[in-house]
Amino acid sequence: MKSTRGDESLIIVMAGNATPEDVAQVIERLESIGAEAHVSEGKHRTVIGAVGDRNAIQQLPWEAFSGVERAVPVLKPFKFVSRDFQVEDTVVDVGGVLVGGGNFAPIAGPCAVESRDQLFASAEAVAKAGATILRGDAFKPRTSPYSFQGLAEKGLELLAEARAEFGMPFVAEAVDPRDVELVSSYADLIRVGTRNMANFTLLSELGKQDKPVMLKRGLTATIEEWLNAAEYIYKEGNHDVIMCERGIRTFETSTRNTLDISAVPVVKELSHLPIIVDPSHSGGRRSLVPALTRTAVAAGADGFMVDVHPAPETALVDGPQAILPSEFADLMIQVQAMLAVMESFR
Amino acid sequence: MKSTRGDESLIIVMAGNATPEDVAQVIERLESIGAEAHVSEGKHRTVIGAVGDRNAIQQLPWEAFSGVERAVPVLKPFKFVSRDFQVEDTVVDVGGVLVGGGNFAPIAGPCAVESRDQLFASAEAVAKAGATILRGDAFKPRTSPYSFQGLAEKGLELLAEARAEFGMPFVAEAVDPRDVELVSSYADLIRVGTRNMANFTLLSELGKQDKPVMLKRGLTATIEEWLNAAEYIYKEGNHDVIMCERGIRTFETSTRNTLDISAVPVVKELSHLPIIVDPSHSGGRRSLVPALTRTAVAAGADGFMVDVHPAPETALVDGPQAILPSEFADLMIQVQAMLAVMESFR
Amino acid sequence: MKSTRGDESLIIVMAGNATPEDVAQVIERLESIGAEAHVSEGKHRTVIGAVGDRNAIQQLPWEAFSGVERAVPVLKPFKFVSRDFQVEDTVVDVGGVLVGGGNFAPIAGPCAVESRDQLFASAEAVAKAGATILRGDAFKPRTSPYSFQGLAEKGLELLAEARAEFGMPFVAEAVDPRDVELVSSYADLIRVGTRNMANFTLLSELGKQDKPVMLKRGLTATIEEWLNAAEYIYKEGNHDVIMCERGIRTFETSTRNTLDISAVPVVKELSHLPIIVDPSHSGGRRSLVPALTRTAVAAGADGFMVDVHPAPETALVDGPQAILPSEFADLMIQVQAMLAVMESFR
Amino acid sequence: MKSTRGDESLIIVMAGNATPEDVAQVIERLESIGAEAHVSEGKHRTVIGAVGDRNAIQQLPWEAFSGVERAVPVLKPFKFVSRDFQVEDTVVDVGGVLVGGGNFAPIAGPCAVESRDQLFASAEAVAKAGATILRGDAFKPRTSPYSFQGLAEKGLELLAEARAEFGMPFVAEAVDPRDVELVSSYADLIRVGTRNMANFTLLSELGKQDKPVMLKRGLTATIEEWLNAAEYIYKEGNHDVIMCERGIRTFETSTRNTLDISAVPVVKELSHLPIIVDPSHSGGRRSLVPALTRTAVAAGADGFMVDVHPAPETALVDGPQAILPSEFADLMIQVQAMLAVMESFR
Repeated sequence: MKSTRGDESLIIVMAGNATPEDVAQVIERLESIGAEAHVSEGKHRTVIGAVGDRNAIQQLPWEAFSGVERAVPVLKPFKFVSRDFQVEDTVVDVGGVLVGGGNFAPIAGPCAVESRDQLFASAEAVAKAGATILRGDAFKPRTSPYSFQGLAEKGLELLAEARAEFGMPFVAEAVDPRDVELVSSYADLIRVGTRNMANFTLLSELGKQDKPVMLKRGLTATIEEWLNAAEYIYKEGNHDVIMCERGIRTFETSTRNTLDISAVPVVKELSHLPIIVDPSHSGGRRSLVPALTRTAVAAGADGFMVDVHPAPETALVDGPQAILPSEFADLMIQVQAMLAVMESFR
Repeated sequence: MKSTRGDESLIIVMAGNATPEDVAQVIERLESIGAEAHVSEGKHRTVIGAVGDRNAIQQLPWEAFSGVERAVPVLKPFKFVSRDFQVEDTVVDVGGVLVGGGNFAPIAGPCAVESRDQLFASAEAVAKAGATILRGDAFKPRTSPYSFQGLAEKGLELLAEARAEFGMPFVAEAVDPRDVELVSSYADLIRVGTRNMANFTLLSELGKQDKPVMLKRGLTATIEEWLNAAEYIYKEGNHDVIMCERGIRTFETSTRNTLDISAVPVVKELSHLPIIVDPSHSGGRRSLVPALTRTAVAAGADGFMVDVHPAPETALVDGPQAILPSEFADLMIQVQAMLAVMESFR
Repeated sequence: MKSTRGDESLIIVMAGNATPEDVAQVIERLESIGAEAHVSEGKHRTVIGAVGDRNAIQQLPWEAFSGVERAVPVLKPFKFVSRDFQVEDTVVDVGGVLVGGGNFAPIAGPCAVESRDQLFASAEAVAKAGATILRGDAFKPRTSPYSFQGLAEKGLELLAEARAEFGMPFVAEAVDPRDVELVSSYADLIRVGTRNMANFTLLSELGKQDKPVMLKRGLTATIEEWLNAAEYIYKEGNHDVIMCERGIRTFETSTRNTLDISAVPVVKELSHLPIIVDPSHSGGRRSLVPALTRTAVAAGADGFMVDVHPAPETALVDGPQAILPSEFADLMIQVQAMLAVMESFR
Repeated sequence: MKSTRGDESLIIVMAGNATPEDVAQVIERLESIGAEAHVSEGKHRTVIGAVGDRNAIQQLPWEAFSGVERAVPVLKPFKFVSRDFQVEDTVVDVGGVLVGGGNFAPIAGPCAVESRDQLFASAEAVAKAGATILRGDAFKPRTSPYSFQGLAEKGLELLAEARAEFGMPFVAEAVDPRDVELVSSYADLIRVGTRNMANFTLLSELGKQDKPVMLKRGLTATIEEWLNAAEYIYKEGNHDVIMCERGIRTFETSTRNTLDISAVPVVKELSHLPIIVDPSHSGGRRSLVPALTRTAVAAGADGFMVDVHPAPETALVDGPQAILPSEFADLMIQVQAMLAVMESFR
């Protein structure tokens, strides 16, 4: 055993045909930024551990150096959102409803606000069945330019009315950095949609607001990239971020997306932020919602969010995945029973 | 509304620039195999519905015909394993232990049989904690040719001894069509590993045995391809097939594979076969096993299969994902509690 | 053969257990929007072809209707960007340089503008070697909030200076709808980055500008979604869109992304828009750039775009994939030779 | 800079909360197998470089040890097939036709042998146009059990007749370890299909034959796993392996698979084995074959293999991707012209 001191935040593996000059250049560059090199010379490969400031080291283009085969990060690129930084669970206050740290939030409502009648029918039903936060969108990013794009501010007004009527805070999506202030002035929780998870200008804008943010996972984002996106919001000063797993894109076509249920325990290991699951958008089909919602509870999620529509076949957005109010009531009974069992395991 | 009669098993969409001759050629070919064509002529596209024997129609290379843009199957290619063919759940008898149709099977043991001591320590522990079927492999297909490949027949003998000692049937993998008879002469349930799901010569061989088969999903197989593989076994006369979801390959790297938990309700919709979940190989990490096992129960699976090793750090195969006997005992308490709740929802 | 008339734009497959009422409800709904139903009744399934206005039909939530198994679109959702709409290749004028319809554009320069010296060294070299458009970014969306984010307007000023000095138009990225006007006031071609392909507010903004747009494919976008994104820009009135394939996310980790070279002939079949390839961001490694650039030419692309940096190991962004000016000069010799051969095949 | 000696073949990253005992246990285990530990202790993490026999070190289940976060291999798991082991290109002799090291092989013929007429029509055409190796299969693994499975030995006899008649060696697939001897007694080159890339019993059997092997990439295999599969064959004593890229499974549905053209230069960097491309099975459509074949040449492949069928619409297997004899003749003209240009770059 040979021993050295210092946090290696990056391992630089030199190529088999790297020259002594190549190795020296890497070491010099490390030393020029105040870092230290732990060099292990072998017959086949030289391996260099870089010790020093993580950000300074990790942002250099090591694989562009002559003779470098690859650079392997040892420490994760995100800081504030990691369990290393904060051990206790973050609890987010959404208009008086707590999420995280043992507080479970059923979130339900229509995918898009279409009319006062549709919204109020859905809101009344989900409130009665036990949902604690209302969902409903006023701005909808759509794959096809020919699809319904939302009611805009009119939708937010209706959501605020529903909040007053049924006594539950609401979450709504912001899709444009220019609308953040507007959405924030109405909603209790601002959602970042899957297509915008890597819209860094939107994330920065949200980091400067004082409303909590729900950050949906990008369709194709790794868990590490998703936590990096949360870091964007967090480091701007907004620490109230709720992660939302909603399925990723894979080769499987029998579901709209593939719900990555493992993301729940993985995020809980890596981060102190609460995480919920969206079974509606991951499965994409009404018949799958109950089973997938139960898996969210079983995985240890801090809540779930489902589309509930009084008449799914008339929905302007995502009807196939919306469940009926009566189905939601049945689902809540199952969720409550499973939560009680989960509670008993603590 | 215009109406015609007959099951359209395939829709043939002609290209925008298809000629009348192209359309005629497709219709003729359909009629030559005794099928009927429902033709809808539009300004932009002609669409042809093919009515007749599904297999005869679907196996023709329609997209090779001049002027054909694509062919969309309406009916699934598998028959016997579908819910259309049999509405009631299949119940499989594994050496006296029932699986499916409300019978839940906890399956546990070491990934590979390494020695009598290792196997018996694991088997004793899992039997005591409530597992009803023992797992343990004698043949291991490994990615690297330099890894441990299993004890072969010696391993099967040890498994048979453990069965006698602890009174539980066992499941073991067959990797070579030439070994099917051998494995079948010892094991109560023969497993097809993920790498062999599309090894059709192995599947056909298994279809001719009289022992039940556990069919793991291919790392990259769609649910439809997986059910097709089950059809291979079924149509040879072996109707005792248990599906096993074990994670698929995606871009996510924080877990070994991505557990596709939605596959449980989807397979239950499409097929009458029982389905279980392998939380060990999907997550690839010991810490994820409890949460993922709970999701299997919550999704409605008919069982689960986990790696349990008395000393994972000495394991010759897949140590990182094996849980300790004590962890398995804790897990079984959770599973029993959740099963009771699930039962109450029926 | 049975025959009906009218373009079926959607096929609705009813479930095996659908009732006559379910079928009637679908037909009624179709008729209520002025569409016609071609109904084919079989023993196992009823299949309904929907004839009428494509947008009206396709935007209804058919899979939310009771008894519907799935709805399969026959006609693509995009219109204006399709070959059906316009047969001849679109030719885009980028500050006097033509792209598409037989006009091939080599685009090169640094990934990000870092300084006057760095930009000018790169621009001079690529101009001399035969590049016709300069690349260089002033705004950089980065996965980690701790990475260099670009020089903003100062960067655009330097690019404009380089244009004047070396006589080549330039392309730069816009990442925020609020910056579109600013970027548009400097650049000859505005780029939409891969993370923003589905940022529909940004796309709409760009559709209202009079500068051409280069639309990079989303990391996880299907070709159909990518063409839908182009339709967003096109239908706002901006018809000068250049598609840019830059690799998709797959399970393979030995390259940064997987270059989907088949996208070149596929887009050319489906659309009249020009398409180029970015071999730098797809491969992610300097050593792969020459081979991947050659495949772009061989596939029939209308150009390519590469990162060229005078000293990649000092690059603040994406150094590992930048090639040296001398390597670019060698590459251009190969590209010219291959273009001549490709020309001979016409 | 601190310096130690010895090839680190694995880096073990301890978790943030690992105890000194955890670290000691890892070091002891390393020393127990004769390896040395390079330990770097930091405030956040301890990182251990393992120096010693690569196989002994890499096969231990490090991530099963208490306190270990992850283990990162530095050296690749394959040895004999790597460029580190042999710098010069391997040249494979296929019945007198050389492949690799500058020798380019056009391989063509029907996907499956269906009849003497079909085979001979195809063979005559491809021989005349310049193909040097004939393809044609006698055993076909099919996704659906209801599809045509091949003519078996009768097919091999016809291929041998065609070889005699047209003077070209042929390649055929072996799908069952029990058939290897049979196929080997007829064919000049034995193919392992994509579904069998990880069928290790088949690979071992092939490693003991004296005929060269063409190893198709698994639908979902990483390049590293694919080279591991080649290592299986190589280490049994058969050094004549030709790699064949044929597309991987991704989310994109407009092509049958996604041709990973980057695999050509990547395999050439990592290994000395020849690599060819199959444009027929990757694209899955006749219209894409010419463009994809040209990209293979441009990427630097050592050959390509295409399906050619005299009447694709009557093909029993994979008709949609087969090109006509006349199209193959045109394609060969393009290939020859591109090869001449590629030659000029050396």
